[in-house]
Amino acid sequence: MYCISAFCCMSVRKMVRALTVSALGLLALLCLFPSEPVQAGKVLVLPVDGSHWLSMKILVEELSRRGHEVVVLVPETSVLIGRSGNYTTKFFRVPYTLAELNANLDHIRKSALEKPQQLTDIIANLGNLMRFTDMQVKACELLLYDESLMKSLRETGFDVLLTDPFLPCGTIIADSFSLPAVYFLRGLPCRLDEAAAQCPSPPSFVPRFFTGFSDKMTFSQRVRNTLMTVFEKYLCHKLFDSFGELASRYLQKDTTYEELLSYGAVWLLRYDFTLDYPKPQMPNMVQIGGISSAKKGPLTKELEEFVEGSGEHGFVVFTLGSMVSQLPEAKAREFFEAFRQIPQRVLWRYTGPVPENAPKNVKLMKWLPQNDLLGHPKVKAFITHGGSHGIYEGIYNGVPMVMLPLFGDQGDNVQRLVSRGVAETLSIYDLTAEKLLVALRKVISDKSYKEKMTELSAIHRDRPIEPLDLAVFWTEFVMRHKGAAHLRPAAHELNWIQYHSLDVIGFLLLLLVTVIFVTVKSCMFCFRKCFKKTQKKKKE
Amino acid sequence: MYCISAFCCMSVRKMVRALTVSALGLLALLCLFPSEPVQAGKVLVLPVDGSHWLSMKILVEELSRRGHEVVVLVPETSVLIGRSGNYTTKFFRVPYTLAELNANLDHIRKSALEKPQQLTDIIANLGNLMRFTDMQVKACELLLYDESLMKSLRETGFDVLLTDPFLPCGTIIADSFSLPAVYFLRGLPCRLDEAAAQCPSPPSFVPRFFTGFSDKMTFSQRVRNTLMTVFEKYLCHKLFDSFGELASRYLQKDTTYEELLSYGAVWLLRYDFTLDYPKPQMPNMVQIGGISSAKKGPLTKELEEFVEGSGEHGFVVFTLGSMVSQLPEAKAREFFEAFRQIPQRVLWRYTGPVPENAPKNVKLMKWLPQNDLLGHPKVKAFITHGGSHGIYEGIYNGVPMVMLPLFGDQGDNVQRLVSRGVAETLSIYDLTAEKLLVALRKVISDKSYKEKMTELSAIHRDRPIEPLDLAVFWTEFVMRHKGAAHLRPAAHELNWIQYHSLDVIGFLLLLLVTVIFVTVKSCMFCFRKCFKKTQKKKKE
Repeated sequence: MYCISAFCCMSVRKMVRALTVSALGLLALLCLFPSEPVQAGKVLVLPVDGSHWLSMKILVEELSRRGHEVVVLVPETSVLIGRSGNYTTKFFRVPYTLAELNANLDHIRKSALEKPQQLTDIIANLGNLMRFTDMQVKACELLLYDESLMKSLRETGFDVLLTDPFLPCGTIIADSFSLPAVYFLRGLPCRLDEAAAQCPSPPSFVPRFFTGFSDKMTFSQRVRNTLMTVFEKYLCHKLFDSFGELASRYLQKDTTYEELLSYGAVWLLRYDFTLDYPKPQMPNMVQIGGISSAKKGPLTKELEEFVEGSGEHGFVVFTLGSMVSQLPEAKAREFFEAFRQIPQRVLWRYTGPVPENAPKNVKLMKWLPQNDLLGHPKVKAFITHGGSHGIYEGIYNGVPMVMLPLFGDQGDNVQRLVSRGVAETLSIYDLTAEKLLVALRKVISDKSYKEKMTELSAIHRDRPIEPLDLAVFWTEFVMRHKGAAHLRPAAHELNWIQYHSLDVIGFLLLLLVTVIFVTVKSCMFCFRKCFKKTQKKKKE
Repeated sequence: MYCISAFCCMSVRKMVRALTVSALGLLALLCLFPSEPVQAGKVLVLPVDGSHWLSMKILVEELSRRGHEVVVLVPETSVLIGRSGNYTTKFFRVPYTLAELNANLDHIRKSALEKPQQLTDIIANLGNLMRFTDMQVKACELLLYDESLMKSLRETGFDVLLTDPFLPCGTIIADSFSLPAVYFLRGLPCRLDEAAAQCPSPPSFVPRFFTGFSDKMTFSQRVRNTLMTVFEKYLCHKLFDSFGELASRYLQKDTTYEELLSYGAVWLLRYDFTLDYPKPQMPNMVQIGGISSAKKGPLTKELEEFVEGSGEHGFVVFTLGSMVSQLPEAKAREFFEAFRQIPQRVLWRYTGPVPENAPKNVKLMKWLPQNDLLGHPKVKAFITHGGSHGIYEGIYNGVPMVMLPLFGDQGDNVQRLVSRGVAETLSIYDLTAEKLLVALRKVISDKSYKEKMTELSAIHRDRPIEPLDLAVFWTEFVMRHKGAAHLRPAAHELNWIQYHSLDVIGFLLLLLVTVIFVTVKSCMFCFRKCFKKTQKKKKE
């Protein structure tokens, strides 16, 4: 504190002098105690489009800033990945147009907004996932068989492949180029990440995706969670077998996606235990949850004026993620109606039709500086779909939430925050202005939401090293040591039966049964002998 | 590199100026960008005597250096823990004299040196452990019922308890004072640490203590490892039940040591995957292996002259740890004979009888600056008993080893390094000069040992944050947040049957059997009905 006051009392000249002195001092220090030099390397990046790219981009740009040569492979019809001065982009052909891609995404959006969020979700989510992966298998095939591109990449002599294994193409390239791979992800469907990393995941306290269970389950929930574990095996088979076939054909060896994936050197997981439930980890799993939250910039003058004008009531931020910026008119009306009745101002990322009498306290925008707004002291609540980026930014800035899960892992994410008492959830399917109002007023006026969120935020921000630095460190580590072999568990050499010691248990049971059998038989034999003797004697 | 050259060319005056400038600069920087202030806290420490204390002391001193008030509870008859200007010590009575303690240790030493290192080790190790814990239960009781000391401690209002749970007394005090606990350890007998932290530990690739197995086991080894897992349960019961009884009596509630232990906020484990095999971890397990290696000082003039005089052949460092500084005369003679035949000089921590014609290339010392010597460029090999401190110092400095495991986890530690091709092992029981010579020549002249060790060292030293800083961070984290509740898995609320989903599996099997039974019965019923009808018709 006294340092801040000292800073306030400093004249500008003094500040400049202090900065110069500090720079010189640091330079001298660095010269006296040189740290291990980081050799610039060559990084090949195969990202996943959409929101997945938003956080990976931060790592990619930082690697480039630190002097590494970064080449990003971009599908021709990309939604969010684009050219940049910070890294080289190489485009590859895909067998679908942007319109087709958008039509597929529209279908996902539509089904999320119009269908009730019930048990059928699992099937709906699966359908969406399978259509998506099907498209990507074809895109991957085009990339792999683009001989001139592959030749030029091979000749570049990369040191590491950075990829989001949500799409398996990267692992095939890593295997083909004999490159160590670093994975950057939030998690994989059907827990393929845990399976591939040989990470134990007891269904008794690790809830499965799409179940919406917490880590504290009733007996009936544990039964369903266990059944889901079995179902996931089938799901993985359905989702990724066509990739396995492509990999086997391309690499000319019999393999599966899980096997390819298992060679990953390091898993950079966007996990954090302020959001996720504590569960077992493997040594090559590195938690970098919240990697996108720290970078905060100032608001534009216009935005600053709008939020400052909200007075003591403050303002509410509302977005439904990068994929949903429009709503059906009837649904949108419910939101406008609710916002009309609150004293807070509202900033809403919305590009859909606006009713004539739209309330004055609502500002609609094509794009929101979400993290910068959530970091503003006047923000009171965050209405969000429960994507992991938004959630981490909300936690980082300690903002209570009203959550409207749409698809994918959002239902599970939302459940985690609701169970921590920092958020309320509503179904977007049957949302009314009244329901929204109740939830919004609750998270704003009931102080416990803000208190718990502030506590969660303090824990989330209190870490020995920033997620971005950690991600950079491990990527560079893999480059320096050509992998991370010392973190690879011997479990990879066991099959499922051996891993779970079922052969050993079977053998020991057999041994036990044999011993019991032989003992009983021997006893009976002795008993009969003795008995016969006694009978004989009696007869005699 | 160029920075070092620049440093060499600097005049002393310039260096002093650069340092002053850097200090001023850093001060200015800190004032401009103040980091989150760390509030000074109160730390109660209950360490374990002997080599366990050597690394915990480093953390204790660092916490004190960072402004925390540290109180260390020391048994009156302590071997290595003593008064210090860096922290407050409070002595407590123990029911044994230093002579009795030494007699117990002598027994352990003797049995290690004179008995063959075979299967009987497990029983010998157990016996030693049980005698030791028995002594400590009594000491703990005296401490707990020392009312004036406990009252004064309670009134101090500590923020955290730092303890080595190898002895359980700390957990009882933490529970009684409602203090969050930070554990500092290398591991616990019978894997009680993993059990208490709810960490999965599949016997298929996690070798058990005292087995000497690697992580790649044959079927027969896996069978023995599984049996050892069962045996460990019994062992834990034998070792710690008396502590559980004491805890139940003192805390006036029904509890066990495992239960008390499970409330630990953070486990600071002296693990590192350059030594240990990769295995599952829990989120509150923090790896700080090698915490004692980094602090390196210069050698004394006398030592520097001795090692520099070794010329191109270099020198060998030989210690058997803090507990063994003497050997039976016949055994010592074998060492002297071997050393006479090598061109290297030898530095040996030895206080036993010396033969008249002791070779000139051997320097005997009461105490060795082990880490400083292992960091010297002329060191060629390290003869060690395989204690974890020595091993980490050897790995840190990249020195190949000849290992003579004595007791405890040393046999397992040694196995890990031998399987990595960076060490040779010998049994001290039947050691001869010739055997030692062969091993020593092998690790010195076969370049692969040095190469592999240099690689291992590079990996070990390449970490995002130093172990000591990490240990300090997590201790302070627990103080700041009064624990680390967000890292506590829900598994703690499950019993053994629930954790392994045995109830769910049983229920599902029952369901399956019932369904099959009902289906079969229904089919049979229908079949019989149809059959009867047909028979009737036929009859008609």
